[in-house]
Amino acid sequence: MRNSSLEKEILQMVREAKEASYAMGLVKASAKNAVLRKMARALVSHADELIRENKKDLKAGKDRGLSSALMDRLMLDKKRIKGMAQCLLDTEKIKDCVGEVMETIKRPNGLVIKKVRVPMGVVAIIYESRPNVTSDCIGLCLKSGNAVILKGGKEAIHSNRAIFRILRQALEGTVIPKEAVQFVSSTDREAVAVLLRQDRYIDMIVPRGGEGLIRFIAGHTSIPVVKHYKGVCHTYVAEDADLQMAQKICFNAKVQRPGVCNAMETMLVHKACAPRFLPKMIDAFQKAGVEIRGCSQTRRIAGKSIKTATTQDWYEEYLDKILSVRVVNSLKEAIEHINAYGSKHSDAIVTRNKKEAEQFLKSVDSACLYVNASTRFTDGFEFGFGAEVGISTDKLHVRGPMALEGLTTYKYEIYGKGQIRS
Amino acid sequence: MRNSSLEKEILQMVREAKEASYAMGLVKASAKNAVLRKMARALVSHADELIRENKKDLKAGKDRGLSSALMDRLMLDKKRIKGMAQCLLDTEKIKDCVGEVMETIKRPNGLVIKKVRVPMGVVAIIYESRPNVTSDCIGLCLKSGNAVILKGGKEAIHSNRAIFRILRQALEGTVIPKEAVQFVSSTDREAVAVLLRQDRYIDMIVPRGGEGLIRFIAGHTSIPVVKHYKGVCHTYVAEDADLQMAQKICFNAKVQRPGVCNAMETMLVHKACAPRFLPKMIDAFQKAGVEIRGCSQTRRIAGKSIKTATTQDWYEEYLDKILSVRVVNSLKEAIEHINAYGSKHSDAIVTRNKKEAEQFLKSVDSACLYVNASTRFTDGFEFGFGAEVGISTDKLHVRGPMALEGLTTYKYEIYGKGQIRS
Repeated sequence: MRNSSLEKEILQMVREAKEASYAMGLVKASAKNAVLRKMARALVSHADELIRENKKDLKAGKDRGLSSALMDRLMLDKKRIKGMAQCLLDTEKIKDCVGEVMETIKRPNGLVIKKVRVPMGVVAIIYESRPNVTSDCIGLCLKSGNAVILKGGKEAIHSNRAIFRILRQALEGTVIPKEAVQFVSSTDREAVAVLLRQDRYIDMIVPRGGEGLIRFIAGHTSIPVVKHYKGVCHTYVAEDADLQMAQKICFNAKVQRPGVCNAMETMLVHKACAPRFLPKMIDAFQKAGVEIRGCSQTRRIAGKSIKTATTQDWYEEYLDKILSVRVVNSLKEAIEHINAYGSKHSDAIVTRNKKEAEQFLKSVDSACLYVNASTRFTDGFEFGFGAEVGISTDKLHVRGPMALEGLTTYKYEIYGKGQIRS
Repeated sequence: MRNSSLEKEILQMVREAKEASYAMGLVKASAKNAVLRKMARALVSHADELIRENKKDLKAGKDRGLSSALMDRLMLDKKRIKGMAQCLLDTEKIKDCVGEVMETIKRPNGLVIKKVRVPMGVVAIIYESRPNVTSDCIGLCLKSGNAVILKGGKEAIHSNRAIFRILRQALEGTVIPKEAVQFVSSTDREAVAVLLRQDRYIDMIVPRGGEGLIRFIAGHTSIPVVKHYKGVCHTYVAEDADLQMAQKICFNAKVQRPGVCNAMETMLVHKACAPRFLPKMIDAFQKAGVEIRGCSQTRRIAGKSIKTATTQDWYEEYLDKILSVRVVNSLKEAIEHINAYGSKHSDAIVTRNKKEAEQFLKSVDSACLYVNASTRFTDGFEFGFGAEVGISTDKLHVRGPMALEGLTTYKYEIYGKGQIRS
């Protein structure tokens, strides 16, 4: 049974957003930047109010028995609020790409066709827990000229509502209509279902959260979704690898920050260098507290005390200090393993052999492929994009790090002098 | 209840296609071109066989009472088969964009990031009636380095099967694995449902057919779909229009080929020029057999004998010699009308006022916007793309005419010297 008052409320929201999006698309960079600065100031000056509201979420989280990791993600203090404000100021500094002429085509019949970058229109962000996503996404959507509809998780509802209220208030007296920023206040699960039906008004959905949430959204809407599934990232240590470099790269990819999507989950090692490479490498991992799950050859080389990897391990995104290790017979086998079990996110080869490197780059079907570097660089900031909406594992529209351009589309402006088709 | 043998058959098909797609992506342009030429020759040399199979579809169509328009779309003769072969030869001539380095980023840490154009992988085309779509899409997908899975409508099943068989045979003895071209032979409706679940193997779906088919597909899969809904195209005759030019453009946009998506369906006229413009314009339309449905002002100006347009008319894609006409009070009203009732496809303004033209271009949310030209130019060939997969009314990935680039994506190839993240 549908909740008709919720339906009405959301319908009004998306209509307002669509209407506001037309005005948003015309706002100049300088005006957008002034609003971002005003928003940053507003966050800092309302820090006490924010912390007060955040405490309500923390209390509810404690009562519900949220894990300490989740509680930490939820928590706001002055430092984190300053960080949120800083993110808005960083967004201000990114070059405004709206209006950029991407291509000009002159046709024999005299038509001049310009491909011009324009905002997407109305972007819906459906996300879980971290409250900073609320302000980050408002900033990124405004900078790219989009109206935004936010639907956060119930864990952070008080914090999110407060951030929304403060930032929307900051729009007053500016050229940006306040309807360009919308927040679904209801924690009713039906609210997401209602949003997913608004294909007349919402141009794009960006889900941010666990794979379950993203799969649910992608499977229940005809609105285009940019998906950021998971990162089952590999490093392949090839026959001709500089083994010292390989050890440094693999250690970094696994240990530097295990809980993120660009961390290595499986290490593949060519059989020819496995006996020289694996014992020292695995020892280093174990000293850093990494649990190893190895194939039979790995266990033969590096010790039977290592856990046996099952097929399920090859598919696993541990997001933790766990690593699966497999010895392979050839580059081809490494490529096949990655294409079969990977998530098309980020994969690396360590080798001194240029031909093998080339073959790896061409044959592995992933967004980001590294030769002699850590997979941890897959990141909007590390790529120099100045922002990150997420890492797309989709192949359409945007692949890999998604920044402001991923929130834009283009239109063709065609200039004629009375041309007709014959 | 699921048909498990159909499920198995399609699962094998998509797995084979995925496997073949890895090889496809590495095939050089010259080899792909040779295959396209071989395919073109095969179509012509098997014309008799094709015509024989096509007769079975024509007979079944007649028995089912298909309209003469549909029967005509279904029919194959030697001339049309030559046309199909020519399309493959035209596809051969398009520049191969696979491998193109779209951007090179050099980072302060020494990483060199190359954004390289690559094939999408496995593309599924789900289409209705016209058999030439089978060969056109095989050609476009092969040229762009993709494996393709075809699912045609049951009306053309014998013709489609024969085209597939002939073209697949042409792959024998070439470097392109024959598994790169797949055809769902079953006419069971469940076959589409099974395809829509293969998100592990299919990278993209391009539906070609009526809006009903496209909406069904978009609503029932998590695989990205490039949608080509409908074309409710407008021409706005502004206050400062050259009225002779306006008449020529409007007549062309409506009459030259009324059955296509870039034909005009609604004409908007500024009230200041309506009394001078409408009577002659409508007279010309009526002489050409166009039925006019007008707003009250249109009827007052051009005669009460004109049918009254209802709200439904503003949404309608007639694809026929019918035109709705509305007199508006301002440019703003014209823009609002188009954004409210249009389909984001192609819209034109006729004006001598540059400022108004600019406002129209910036404020109408459509893929293709024309100043002083007919909307009929929205077409991959007219844009100089050398091909057309369709006209996307989506905003993600590809907007407007979709050509070979729309069948590609990119990957980042990142070259390091042992860089790790700190």
